[in-house]
This record gives sequence, C-alpha cells and structure tokens, in this order.
Amino acid sequence: MNRPDPKNVKQIACIGAGTIGGGMIAEFLARGYSVTAQDPGKDALASLERLLDQAWPILEQIGLTASASRERLRFTTDIEEAVAGADFVQESVPEDLELKVRIYERLDELVPPEIVIGSSTSGFPMTEIQRRCKYPERTVVAHPVNPPYLIPLIEIVGGEKTDPAVLDWAVSFYEAVGKRVLRMEKEIYGFMINRLQIALFREALQMIAAEQATVAQIDDCLTHGLGLRWASMGPFATFHLAAGDRGLGSFMDLHGSVEWRAPYVTETPLPDWTPELRARILQQAEEVIDGRTIPQMIEERNDTVIGLLKLREASRANAAKKHLGAAHAA
Amino acid sequence: MNRPDPKNVKQIACIGAGTIGGGMIAEFLARGYSVTAQDPGKDALASLERLLDQAWPILEQIGLTASASRERLRFTTDIEEAVAGADFVQESVPEDLELKVRIYERLDELVPPEIVIGSSTSGFPMTEIQRRCKYPERTVVAHPVNPPYLIPLIEIVGGEKTDPAVLDWAVSFYEAVGKRVLRMEKEIYGFMINRLQIALFREALQMIAAEQATVAQIDDCLTHGLGLRWASMGPFATFHLAAGDRGLGSFMDLHGSVEWRAPYVTETPLPDWTPELRARILQQAEEVIDGRTIPQMIEERNDTVIGLLKLREASRANAAKKHLGAAHAA
Repeated sequence: MNRPDPKNVKQIACIGAGTIGGGMIAEFLARGYSVTAQDPGKDALASLERLLDQAWPILEQIGLTASASRERLRFTTDIEEAVAGADFVQESVPEDLELKVRIYERLDELVPPEIVIGSSTSGFPMTEIQRRCKYPERTVVAHPVNPPYLIPLIEIVGGEKTDPAVLDWAVSFYEAVGKRVLRMEKEIYGFMINRLQIALFREALQMIAAEQATVAQIDDCLTHGLGLRWASMGPFATFHLAAGDRGLGSFMDLHGSVEWRAPYVTETPLPDWTPELRARILQQAEEVIDGRTIPQMIEERNDTVIGLLKLREASRANAAKKHLGAAHAA
Repeated sequence: MNRPDPKNVKQIACIGAGTIGGGMIAEFLARGYSVTAQDPGKDALASLERLLDQAWPILEQIGLTASASRERLRFTTDIEEAVAGADFVQESVPEDLELKVRIYERLDELVPPEIVIGSSTSGFPMTEIQRRCKYPERTVVAHPVNPPYLIPLIEIVGGEKTDPAVLDWAVSFYEAVGKRVLRMEKEIYGFMINRLQIALFREALQMIAAEQATVAQIDDCLTHGLGLRWASMGPFATFHLAAGDRGLGSFMDLHGSVEWRAPYVTETPLPDWTPELRARILQQAEEVIDGRTIPQMIEERNDTVIGLLKLREASRANAAKKHLGAAHAA
C-alpha cells in the first residue's frame, strides 16, 4: 500500500472541532501542518476560534514550528470538502458509538484507502468503530489527553482489522508531531488512560455518594497529595521510593499483596447517576471552582503544566549530574 | 481535659523512625519542635540520619522555622524514655494491626491521658487500633503522604471512641505544623488517599497481569498524561474544563453516567500476588528506574515537587490577576 510518508504529512483533515478536536487542530497548526477542520455545529467555528485564541500563546511558549500559522486553517461544515487532498484524517466527533460507526462508513467512502484515519475516541475499541468500513485496515485509535496541545501522551491501538503496518505508520506520524506515543498491543475499552482514571473516579463517586468524602476533599487528595507525586513519577516509581532502600519488591510484598482488596476498596455497585447525586457534586464543586471562570482555570492549568514540564526535565538532569559526580568521586 | 495548647506543642515523641516516621521527624524538626525518636531496629538511627541528610537541604529550601535544628533530635530504643515529657505522640510503626494494637496498649499506660496520640497508619481505622486502650478518646489517625516533609496533605479521622475535641486538637496542631489537613467525618479503611490510589493500582495490576499494559506504560500514563493534569487540578476541576464552556455537569452527564462501569473497568477478582507477577513487575520496572539509584530518584522527585508547589501558586495568582483585569475592563 502506497501510503504518504508519515514524517512528511502536509495536509490534515480534522472531523469534529470540539474540545478534543479543537485541541488537536491547535497542536497540528503549531507543528506547521495545514488543517481543514469540519464540524456541523452552529457555533463550531466561533468556539474553535476561541479555543485557538486560548491555546496559541501557550503553543508559542512551547515553541512553534517555523512554518506554523493559524492561516493554515480552513473550516467547512462539509465532510467531503474537508477530506479532499488530506494526507491524514483525525476524527474527533462526540463519544457516541453509533455516530462514530456512521461517520467511519462515510469517511471510508470519501477517503482513498491509502490514507490513515485516526480516532480520538476516549474509549471505544476500533473493532467496534470500523465494523462497516470497506477499508478498515487503515483505521486506528489515536486517543489524546485533554488538552492535546499541552499533554504529551497519545494512545495508539488498532482494531481486529487494522493492519499492523498502519499502527507503525501512526506511531511514526505522532512522533513526528511531537507526541509521547503509548502503543497498546491489546484492545480494551477505555485503553489505559481512561481505565486508570475511571477506576479512581469510581472510588471517588462511591465515597461522595456514601458521604465519606466531598468533591473538594477528593480534589485535595490529588492536588495536595497524590498529584504532586504523580507529577514527578508514576505509581511504580513512587512505590520504589517508599520502602527505604529496599525498593519496589519489598513495598509491593508488604502492601500490594494485602491491602489492595476489600475493605480498602468499595465493592458495592457504582451508585446510579441520579439528579440528587448530580446536584450534590455540582454544589460541592463550587468550593473547588472558588469563583474562578473556566478560561481563568484553563490559563492557570496551562501555566502550571508548561512550567512543570520544564521543571521536571531540569530536576532529572540536575539529579543525574550530581549523582554521577558522587559515583565518580566514590 | 487539660490538654496542651495544640499551637504551643514543644516536645514530640515519634514512635517508629522508618520511611514515614523519619519523614515526620524531619518535618517536626524543621518546624522547630524538639523530637525524641524511638525505634527498636538495629540500624534505625543510622538510616534515620541518612533520611535527615537527604531531607534537610529540601527543608532549608522550603524554609526552616527560626528555632529549627537537627540538634533538637534525641534517639532511643526505649518507648518509656521516648514519651517522657512529650506534648504529643506520633506513632509510625510498621503497618501491622496486631503490632499497632500492642503498641497502643503500651502507650496508653505510659502516656498521660491528656496527651494526644496520632497514628501514621496508612489504612487501619482507629476503632481497631484503640480497642485495648483505657484512654482511647485521645487517639486519632493522622495519616501523612510520603514524603511527609514535602507533601502537604494529612488525613485526620477518629475511631468510635475518639473524643471529637481530640479531632479538633489534631486539626489545630497539624495546621500549626503547616500541613494541609483533610478531616474525615466517617471512618473507612484506607481513608481517602489510599482508597483512591488503591483503586487506580488495582486496575493497573489487572492490566499488567492480563498483559494489556506494562509497568512503564502505566507510569507513562501518569507522568506524561494524568499526573500532569492532577498536578495542576483535581479530577473534578479537570472535568469542569473538559466540556467547552458547559462545565462539570455536562461532562459528568455524558461520561460519568455511562462509561464508569464495565467494560471500562475490570470487574474480575484482583490477580493473586504470585512470584511470577512479582517478577514481571520488577523486571518491567527496570525500564522506569532507567539506571537511577533510589537517592537520585528521591532528589529528582523532591526538586520537582518543591518547584511545582511554587509554580502552582504563581500560576493561580497570575491567572487571577489577568482575569480580574479582564473583568474590570469589560
């Protein structure tokens, strides 16, 4: 199959321009790609422009590619027009399986079979999405993390009919974009990112429903506790540092084998999403939001994440230099 | 009951001086308290000294209280000697319920009933720990997050026999120490912090056992994805920013009500902690550790967390200033 060179993609069609689609559009533009965005929504273009206004100063701080320009964006409500001439298609329509299946059926007809189509789905297996395609082998999940222009990770995983060479293509393409690619070999609902966060959210929801915790307390657990550690290192690296000089194995023997089951985890069914629970969460969330507007909170988050990415790199280099020095001196 | 003023504690007895106990000792010393540390371990004093050598430069960066000094530390292997004259007792013996029950029985005899005893237990309810005490009303869970001298959060929760006034006392005391206090009204195993992280770890372990993910991929999910967000904002604040300008309620309606159950979460029993699973995790963890020593990794983490705490404060202030300005101009 004569696919475009993944390192030399020029023209990208972005189907769906909401929070995630818009975030990918921002990132692609910042990396110098030409983008045709498609979205049938009445206010889609205006809200995309607002998203770009917000993202662009951040992307300038991260560093734009020389050829990057917001002028390279075209917008249309028409799918056929959007995909014409595209070297790659990123689909980010709402998370509704039947909608995705219909969109893929249509894209399959419109897009030449050598062109790869990646889905921003946050949880559906590609096997489900590609099931009515004539050329399913070029479809792949490419799930970014919100906001895509700021969070490096992207999950790549194929469906039953995806050609493994298309996975390779997608990995090369997103690495060229500058993403941190997580390639999964097995297809599961929610991939990795959402399985991990859903597990945590479920437990949070259980505690809130049982009045054992409030929304603000859950958020405090992350921002003043767990999130500070996970900003620096993942859970296994964190364990490795939690047992003196005995390391990960010793920590896991002590805690992982004993505590990771009831009564430390709620095993009753997840509470229903009732109007009462919804109202409780929204009311408690006021304490977290603390009068800040959404744009203000986004700006605050963006500043912190950019600073953190730089900080981490410096911390790693400093510690390595110092400990290498110590090892040499010893 | 004529308890010491929680804002005027001078002398603290720390029972157990391992990773957590030692971390609390470092923090208490940095805040100017006199500490008598007790630990029966053969190498306990030497490893406490190493921990303090590592923590002290960090605590200097955070800022020592004027009266802070490592000279205010005394060490003993004898519990009776340790608690003599203490205004407060912090217990951090290994996480073994029978051991804790025995230690509390002994502390209960040795420590005057007006003196509060706080436990660093990472998951046992105080009701279980205090069950053989004559004065259980002064015992309370005070669970810090490793490393205590760096991570602000501490969970405070009483047992059935804990006097609510003792909870108030503990909250005042730890606020004077400078902790971010999370006071729980209901007693559950694992409190909040560990319930949340155990839920996430369980899912990670399921994926690793099923060969759906590797240790390094799980850690990548946090350090290049989820952890970047949670370093800035908690999960509910994150949701609030993930639905355009529609906010939290809209996001939860779409995702929370549908996706937070199987097939997005593994509902099979947690795999047994077999030698095979243990070996797989340790082998895969090599990729995460990447040749770094534990002291090097600790230094790297400490640097990042300190920088992040400052960064976050600045990001919040900057965004508030800018958006307040915008609101005034509008």
